Amino acid sequence: MNNMETSSSHSVGLVETQQVTLFDEGDPMPLDCGRSLGPVQVAFETYGTLNENGSNVILLCHALSGNAHAAGRHHPDDKKSGWWDNYIGPGKPFDTDYFFVISSNNLGGCDGTTGPSSINPESGRPFGLDFPMITIGDMARLQKALLAHLGIQKVLAVAGGSMGGMIALQWALDYPDDLAGCIVIASTPRLTAQNIAFNAVARQAIMVDPHFKGGDYYESNHPINGLAVARMMAHITYLSEQALDIKFGRRMQNPDATQADGFDQDFAVESYLRYQGSSFVTKFDANTYLYITKAMDQFDPFPDPETTAKRLEPVNCRLMVMSFDTDWRFDTSRSKELVKILNMHNKTVSFEEFTSQHGHDAFLLKSPDYQQSLSSFLVRLYQDFVHGPAQAMAQGVSDQ
Amino acid sequence: MNNMETSSSHSVGLVETQQVTLFDEGDPMPLDCGRSLGPVQVAFETYGTLNENGSNVILLCHALSGNAHAAGRHHPDDKKSGWWDNYIGPGKPFDTDYFFVISSNNLGGCDGTTGPSSINPESGRPFGLDFPMITIGDMARLQKALLAHLGIQKVLAVAGGSMGGMIALQWALDYPDDLAGCIVIASTPRLTAQNIAFNAVARQAIMVDPHFKGGDYYESNHPINGLAVARMMAHITYLSEQALDIKFGRRMQNPDATQADGFDQDFAVESYLRYQGSSFVTKFDANTYLYITKAMDQFDPFPDPETTAKRLEPVNCRLMVMSFDTDWRFDTSRSKELVKILNMHNKTVSFEEFTSQHGHDAFLLKSPDYQQSLSSFLVRLYQDFVHGPAQAMAQGVSDQ
Repeated sequence: MNNMETSSSHSVGLVETQQVTLFDEGDPMPLDCGRSLGPVQVAFETYGTLNENGSNVILLCHALSGNAHAAGRHHPDDKKSGWWDNYIGPGKPFDTDYFFVISSNNLGGCDGTTGPSSINPESGRPFGLDFPMITIGDMARLQKALLAHLGIQKVLAVAGGSMGGMIALQWALDYPDDLAGCIVIASTPRLTAQNIAFNAVARQAIMVDPHFKGGDYYESNHPINGLAVARMMAHITYLSEQALDIKFGRRMQNPDATQADGFDQDFAVESYLRYQGSSFVTKFDANTYLYITKAMDQFDPFPDPETTAKRLEPVNCRLMVMSFDTDWRFDTSRSKELVKILNMHNKTVSFEEFTSQHGHDAFLLKSPDYQQSLSSFLVRLYQDFVHGPAQAMAQGVSDQ
Repeated sequence: MNNMETSSSHSVGLVETQQVTLFDEGDPMPLDCGRSLGPVQVAFETYGTLNENGSNVILLCHALSGNAHAAGRHHPDDKKSGWWDNYIGPGKPFDTDYFFVISSNNLGGCDGTTGPSSINPESGRPFGLDFPMITIGDMARLQKALLAHLGIQKVLAVAGGSMGGMIALQWALDYPDDLAGCIVIASTPRLTAQNIAFNAVARQAIMVDPHFKGGDYYESNHPINGLAVARMMAHITYLSEQALDIKFGRRMQNPDATQADGFDQDFAVESYLRYQGSSFVTKFDANTYLYITKAMDQFDPFPDPETTAKRLEPVNCRLMVMSFDTDWRFDTSRSKELVKILNMHNKTVSFEEFTSQHGHDAFLLKSPDYQQSLSSFLVRLYQDFVHGPAQAMAQGVSDQ
């Protein structure tokens, strides 16, 4: 947590995704849409050790295409580690020497948690579009149920980037007495018309794929072409224009190709996007893409002053809002919008914008300033709310 | 030209698209790719009257989805007038009381000029992807041939927005002695990796549509779903985030719909985009979309300092570069990039950025400052290069 210089080599090591079944048909999970779900499976991973009084829990919330595997590797020969491995582990901001970190696949997901590709107990077949509409609030509710199952009533902090930041914010609103800190990164209190527009085109690309068949495709070909187009387009919004220029510019994939090669003559950025699209469809479900983007579109906890005041009245955690200067999916002004709302209602909120070339994806990537701020916020929470090992932490802080 | 207050009501009235066949199999049109085309049909419209010495010609260049119909109406009950009607007509910047304005459908188009949907004389069937790869240079070359056919050797100005601006710039480079002025609006000297990425995803959406069939779809269903997705995505880039927020915000299409209505509960911006997509496919050819976007991707007249110097050395027209502050498809920095190159090579170039809410589409919309600048540039050209009626014009200028 405090040793920045060498922290990047520290990993949580080999980890396993666990799975638990919560709720059942007799006692199902209530959803915001009025329907209910049960049983509900949840995939999750944990890193670090729960302390005796259960005061060192950090809950991580993943973004649209994430999953429970936030850190470490499942097998020694995995090429990639978990999606937030840069920030989770001994000596990293989510310091597993001090914290017990929990990461679960979101409700509606396709990586171990119940979603549209799961079996509908009523039909014995995959839900498809019979899956109920879900909200960011439902996602937080399922995480709360998972923690209850694990015997955890309160968390030290909830943190997430992008849609994960929305879920973290939802925690502060829905369970105000159950968290001390809330970290909202590269996120927004609501999608703009442009954000919704991009999501709408992505959904359209999926739904016009002839293999989509109204979402009932699990027993035949999946709508991978439409999903790949959706992902390619979304991927453009995850990267800054600057990052694309530095990484690809106008470089050709095959420098010997000529204009006469026609549509086979690709710019490197085209090949890259096609690769992103085709690899995404091997691990993601098109219906999940529809449900999750719709949940993002509909997230709007502060639609009017009255609701805002009512929702924020009980909120008493410390909030940290972070943004990146080249993020154009959820740019800094969206974070400032959230900070303004929180400040107007006298909440304890910090805000920092970081410089990065990497656009929206910056929240996943290494950056000393961002790392330092995350660490500092977490160290202060630890010092103030976790009592036992605070001495070692304090020493670390004074060294910084 | 000089009467700003009442100019908006002045129309060129009823117009007709004309069509001419240029080149033939024995004397085909050479293309940059090394292949050739002949015969080549060109659709065009003219507004105003050619003066005696042929010195009052203005050539307009349309953007990706434009056509020859730039002004007026084809039928009295047409709901819409031509795409640049705001700026063409008596008393408007492209003042048909003074100028003879020519607008033609671009090579590769689908509205009367030879393109991939035209009949390939070798096969007797539509070209499809057998159509040769074309460039912005080829588009300018066909316009030059059209003018030659009309007996016009020199033009007073070439003007265009977006891709039309690229064609206008190409004119200044390829026919430096044949134009006095060049107006490049909301355009760029080259596409960035992000621009190319958006075009690549649009092409992918078209090509994965099962009706695409390698471009050979003219005798069956067209790949309208893919083309609609491509258009929906591109349309987002034509509008500023601000314009989308003002026009749609988070308004629902059906305010009575609830979250439980699922994917049928649309935000207004979704319905709007779907409408844009579905109306576009009734008038545009998917193969043309592929060819034209590829030509844009490959446009790069200044790839290195040596080529730049060589290309610009003979350029001696006056150039006017214009941009709009909320345009994020080709933002102001792209125009400045062009201006910098031109200035470094001692070209006569003016530059102006206009304030607008409307993003890239602003070049088509009414705006007093933009209109004034267009007018002023054209008035000066008229005064300096068109001799007969200059007295009336000069009076107009002094009134401004």
